[in-house]
Amino acid sequence: MALKLGLVGIGKIARDQHIPALTADPRFELVACASRNARVDGVANFADVETMLAEVKDLDAISICTPPQAHFEAALAALRAGKHVMLEKPPAATTRHIALLQAEAQRQGRTLFQTWHSRLAAGVDAAREWLSSRTLTGGTITWKEDVHHWHPGQQWIFEPGGLGVFDPGINALSVLTEVLPGEAVVHEATLDFPENQQAPIAAQLALRTEAGVMVNAEFDFRQKGEQTWDIELVTTTGRLKLTHGGGALQIDGQPLAADAALAGEYPRLYARFAELCMAGESEVDWRPFQLVADAFLVGRRRIVAAHQV
Amino acid sequence: MALKLGLVGIGKIARDQHIPALTADPRFELVACASRNARVDGVANFADVETMLAEVKDLDAISICTPPQAHFEAALAALRAGKHVMLEKPPAATTRHIALLQAEAQRQGRTLFQTWHSRLAAGVDAAREWLSSRTLTGGTITWKEDVHHWHPGQQWIFEPGGLGVFDPGINALSVLTEVLPGEAVVHEATLDFPENQQAPIAAQLALRTEAGVMVNAEFDFRQKGEQTWDIELVTTTGRLKLTHGGGALQIDGQPLAADAALAGEYPRLYARFAELCMAGESEVDWRPFQLVADAFLVGRRRIVAAHQV
Repeated sequence: MALKLGLVGIGKIARDQHIPALTADPRFELVACASRNARVDGVANFADVETMLAEVKDLDAISICTPPQAHFEAALAALRAGKHVMLEKPPAATTRHIALLQAEAQRQGRTLFQTWHSRLAAGVDAAREWLSSRTLTGGTITWKEDVHHWHPGQQWIFEPGGLGVFDPGINALSVLTEVLPGEAVVHEATLDFPENQQAPIAAQLALRTEAGVMVNAEFDFRQKGEQTWDIELVTTTGRLKLTHGGGALQIDGQPLAADAALAGEYPRLYARFAELCMAGESEVDWRPFQLVADAFLVGRRRIVAAHQV
Repeated sequence: MALKLGLVGIGKIARDQHIPALTADPRFELVACASRNARVDGVANFADVETMLAEVKDLDAISICTPPQAHFEAALAALRAGKHVMLEKPPAATTRHIALLQAEAQRQGRTLFQTWHSRLAAGVDAAREWLSSRTLTGGTITWKEDVHHWHPGQQWIFEPGGLGVFDPGINALSVLTEVLPGEAVVHEATLDFPENQQAPIAAQLALRTEAGVMVNAEFDFRQKGEQTWDIELVTTTGRLKLTHGGGALQIDGQPLAADAALAGEYPRLYARFAELCMAGESEVDWRPFQLVADAFLVGRRRIVAAHQV
C-alpha cells in the first residue's frame, strides 16, 4: 500500500521536482499540500502544516520543501504527530536544529531523511568509486550561477538562515563529502556580503583534506552567460571532472557514459525515502552544513555592491 | 607512575592556570614545553610541537593551550605520534576540525579530551542537579568583560577563527548546555563587528530550548567597571542564578555554599584528563562550539566602531 504523503511548501522546487517525482512513484500517494499561497489540484490543500496534520489523520509521511528557515517547526510538528519526515536541502536554519530533529525522530521511532539531492546526480556514484582507490593531490570546485534566473524574487535566500550563495554551494559540498575517501575541513574562507543583504552573494573556500591536500572552491551567484557547477579532482593516477552539478563525469577528459537505467535525483530521493520508512531508519549527514557554518565562522567578510533580489 | 606531559602554547592561560594545576598534581610530570617565544624554567623547551615530539620520545600526553587557530595541527601531530591530547577551549578553528581529531584519536587508540573549563566551576554541578527536576520558563545570560584587561594585546582573538567575544561567550554556552535538561538552538543572533576586525566584539543571541523556551544571551567585550559572567534561569518552581562564570550559585536569591572540598576548574580538568588517559577514553562535546558557528551562520551583522587591541 502506498505511503500517504503531505507536501509542505509549494514553490518552484515542489513543482519542478517533488510533485513530478511523487506522481510517478507508486510507493507514494500525494494526498495533501500545505502552503500559505499556493494550491495543488487534486489534493487537499491547507494553509499550514499544523492544520494539515490535524485534518488529514491518516498521513504517513511529510516532505518539506519550504525555505530552510521554516523546516524545523514543520519537521518537529510532523515527527511529534508520528509522521516520517523528508527534508529538502539546506536542512534547517542552523546545524543544531538537525540534532534536535534527529533526537525527536528517534524518540518517536520515525524516519528522518535529511536529503542531499546532488549526491544522487548521475555521475556521483561512479566518481566515488573511481576515487576510492586513488590518491588526491588537489582539486577545484566552480559553482557559478545567476541568482536572478534560478531564484527569482526569493528574498529568503539573502535573509539570515537563507545561506546566500551557499544555497547552491552546499550542493557542491554535499557531493565533495560524498566522493572524497576521507574528510575535509574549511581551512580559509572569504565571504562577499552585498551591502544591503545578510547572506553572501559569493564565497571562496580553501578546503583541506585529512591528508593535507587543498581543494579550492569558488561560489558565485552573479554569473551571467554560461552557468557552471563543476568539481575537478586531481589524483596521482588521473583527473576526474564532475560537471552539470554531478550529472556528468569525465576521467582524463573522456566522458563516461551514464548508467541509462539510473533515475533522476528526485525520483531516487523518494525511492530512498520509501526504503527508509519501510525499514524504520533515519538518514542524516550534516557534514556539508557544518562546512557552511564553519565557513561563516572563520570567513573573512568583504562588503560588495548592493544586490536587488 | 606520573604521566609525562608536554605543554604547548606558553601564554597567559598556561601560566595562570595550566602550570600551577600541573605542578600540584602528582598524576602528571611536566617535562617539556613548546612555545615560539616563551620558556618555562626547569623543563625542556622547544620552539614548536613537532620538535618537542621528535626530541622527547617518552612523552605520554600533550596539553594544548595555544590560540585555537593552532590547535588542530598540534593535536593532529601529537595524536599521530601516539600521545594523549587535552585541548583548551575553544577547541579549534572550526567544528569539523574536531571531527577529524576525534577520528584520529580513535584510530590511534589515544585519549582526546576536548575541555570546557567553565563546566567545572564550583556552582555548575549543583545547578544541573537543581534544574534536572524543574520546568524552565525563561532565562538570561549576561557575559560582559573588558577585552583590554583579560586579553591584552591578543590580536588572534579578532582574527578569523579567534571568535571575538565568543571566546569568553562560549564558556557561558558550555555551562548552559551542561545544566539544561534538554537541548537549545540559536533562534536569532546579532553580531557586532568592529569595522577593522574580523570577529565580533559583541553579540546578542536568542536561544530556544526543545520545549520552546527562550534564553537570551548578551555577550560584550567592551565592558568597563563591573565585570559580569552570569546565567539566570527561571523555572515554575524557583529561580537559579550562576554568577562568577559558574563559580557561585544562588537559588531564589539565597547563596548556596559551595562544596569546600571541590578543587578549582583546572585542577579538576587535569584530574579528569588523567582518568581518561588511564581508561583509554575520549571526551568530546562540540555542542557549545556548534552554537557559536550557528550564531555566525544566522547572525545579522552590524558594523560598529573600530577596535584597537
